[in-house]
Amino acid sequence: MTARTTAAHGEPGKQDAARAKQAVLIALDWGTTSLRAYLFDAAGEVLDTRISTAGIMNLPVPAEEGGFDAAFDEACGVWLAQAGVLPVLAAGMVGSAQGWVQAPYVETPAGEDALVAGIVKVRAASGVEMAVVPGVLEPGALPNVMRGEETQIFGALGAQGGADAAPVSQPAAQVGTQTATQTATQAATQPALIGLPGTHAKWVMVEGARIARFYTFMTGEVYAVLTAHTILGRTMKRPVAPDTAAFVRGVTVAREHGCAGVLATAFSTRTLGLTDQLAADEQPDYLSGLLIGHELAGLEAVLARRDVELAACAPRLIGADALCERYRLALAQFGCGGAQIVHRATERGLWRIAVRAGLVVASDRTDQTV
Amino acid sequence: MTARTTAAHGEPGKQDAARAKQAVLIALDWGTTSLRAYLFDAAGEVLDTRISTAGIMNLPVPAEEGGFDAAFDEACGVWLAQAGVLPVLAAGMVGSAQGWVQAPYVETPAGEDALVAGIVKVRAASGVEMAVVPGVLEPGALPNVMRGEETQIFGALGAQGGADAAPVSQPAAQVGTQTATQTATQAATQPALIGLPGTHAKWVMVEGARIARFYTFMTGEVYAVLTAHTILGRTMKRPVAPDTAAFVRGVTVAREHGCAGVLATAFSTRTLGLTDQLAADEQPDYLSGLLIGHELAGLEAVLARRDVELAACAPRLIGADALCERYRLALAQFGCGGAQIVHRATERGLWRIAVRAGLVVASDRTDQTV
Repeated sequence: MTARTTAAHGEPGKQDAARAKQAVLIALDWGTTSLRAYLFDAAGEVLDTRISTAGIMNLPVPAEEGGFDAAFDEACGVWLAQAGVLPVLAAGMVGSAQGWVQAPYVETPAGEDALVAGIVKVRAASGVEMAVVPGVLEPGALPNVMRGEETQIFGALGAQGGADAAPVSQPAAQVGTQTATQTATQAATQPALIGLPGTHAKWVMVEGARIARFYTFMTGEVYAVLTAHTILGRTMKRPVAPDTAAFVRGVTVAREHGCAGVLATAFSTRTLGLTDQLAADEQPDYLSGLLIGHELAGLEAVLARRDVELAACAPRLIGADALCERYRLALAQFGCGGAQIVHRATERGLWRIAVRAGLVVASDRTDQTV
Repeated sequence: MTARTTAAHGEPGKQDAARAKQAVLIALDWGTTSLRAYLFDAAGEVLDTRISTAGIMNLPVPAEEGGFDAAFDEACGVWLAQAGVLPVLAAGMVGSAQGWVQAPYVETPAGEDALVAGIVKVRAASGVEMAVVPGVLEPGALPNVMRGEETQIFGALGAQGGADAAPVSQPAAQVGTQTATQTATQAATQPALIGLPGTHAKWVMVEGARIARFYTFMTGEVYAVLTAHTILGRTMKRPVAPDTAAFVRGVTVAREHGCAGVLATAFSTRTLGLTDQLAADEQPDYLSGLLIGHELAGLEAVLARRDVELAACAPRLIGADALCERYRLALAQFGCGGAQIVHRATERGLWRIAVRAGLVVASDRTDQTV
């Protein structure tokens, strides 16, 4: 396996060195299958971004042969050569037992200060020191864990729109300025619900600016294996374009007829096909809607146990745009029309934690907005 | 792919021909991945059994090159050579759109007479005529289908214990004679619940000797893909022997903490491991219990909608012994202690339908017991 790094942001050439001279921080989102590196200036603006496939399970050379050093040098060596010594912060699976250094989980309820207190440092072969953000653990009969999402969550909390969001560029238009004041006020007083769709989707309740509790749904991974490795995939055809109607139908079936559980309803993908009620190219989106519908029905049930009504929530969504749009559509079927998609939560969160940890001094002190 | 046939029953040698001379029926359970052939005498006793891997998706040569003929000859040619012309009945996927001949589904509520009326015949290249039992379809928002199970269900209904079960050998001891009279009486008057654990587990309500409605749970197949292809499998070790305590723990978690649904609880297989609360070799059985627990919770919910209490049912279970024992254990966690395992439901069902269809005349008329 070889890692591939691409410069995703900024213009090439002579401007690179000039930009690097303004840099005050390197921050990494280092997961299982990818490494995203951001170069920040003192106002919290992203100067440059580099994206690599060198996730912790895909290092350019094995970990015991210096794989982490090699991946880090490949992603950030140019910046360090141009800018000299910079503080480095990293979040994600790089802090797991399989990572570069283990940053033990912080338990819920977990605020930013607890994350900062849990930071563990590792020194690269080059002498550069990297601060690694811990993950969060919710203990209990069904424990839950996150690594990386905690940083995105604090990024989303900082992205309340308006002037608060100034430290990372272009925030206002992407966060929904029309309700910015309202949501900023709500966030200070009421529990906030944050959804992170994906392979292992997470739903997080934030209370008093602390991660209070959260749930993990294996929706993305289960969808992948059902389509790739079970009888359901055999009759499916990929549609030319995403089929929104089939998706919504799946969500509705889960919501209205999901009482037997997803182990039962999933089979309808096949039987509706067998009975000519669901075309082959409708089946992938139908199944996707079905699984996301069961996820939201489960979320609705666990929220109801705490007297929280999903339909009354205005969740913030963090993730790939197209997937977040699907969730927004699915949430609407559950009567929850106020979902907002938050952009660049990762960069925001890394910057906030770096400031809180004293790795950098923000020029305008906008890190104190939450 | 080559098919393999083994004689699973009866002694080899000279007795074969003598046995074949008493034969009155060949009956086949012909599924996707296997073909089981039974040779019956006029009392409904199984004289000989042959098991082949030549399921309809694993024929010795492709279907368009005579694969069905080849598989049938390989399994039953010896019997036909010894016994001369015999009636042949088949149930299972052989009657599907991908089978030898399509026997269109009969709709619920479906009794034995409806199955007999839906039989479709196909003539082999050798001239032998085979009667193929149709599957059953339950129409609706979430349609359900079965092929092969309908035959097992009528076999189980005939296996009420005591004298009723005489046409297939050794039934009484295997069906629970102590309650035979009681269950026989119940079956005539109350809905019966029959479970068929497996890749696609089915739960069937029988009312007035007709299949009234049923549910399919993809429990077995989902377990297989979660362990083989997701993150959950990566930390698992196969235990030396099945771990009953871990299995029951999974069932209990599904029952008591399953409100978020299986997409959420499945992840606890990993997080309990990460937090040293579930050993690697406990994880397979824990996950198995979790999935079966969710299946039974879903069954309990759909039964409750019809004012049927799972705990008050005495389900009959059809399937592999070890798996049925797991289900019996899981059912007990739901307060349902009266589950009985029914053996040789396939042979019984094939015989009953053959008699009802007039393919054979039973020497003692014991086919009329239900």
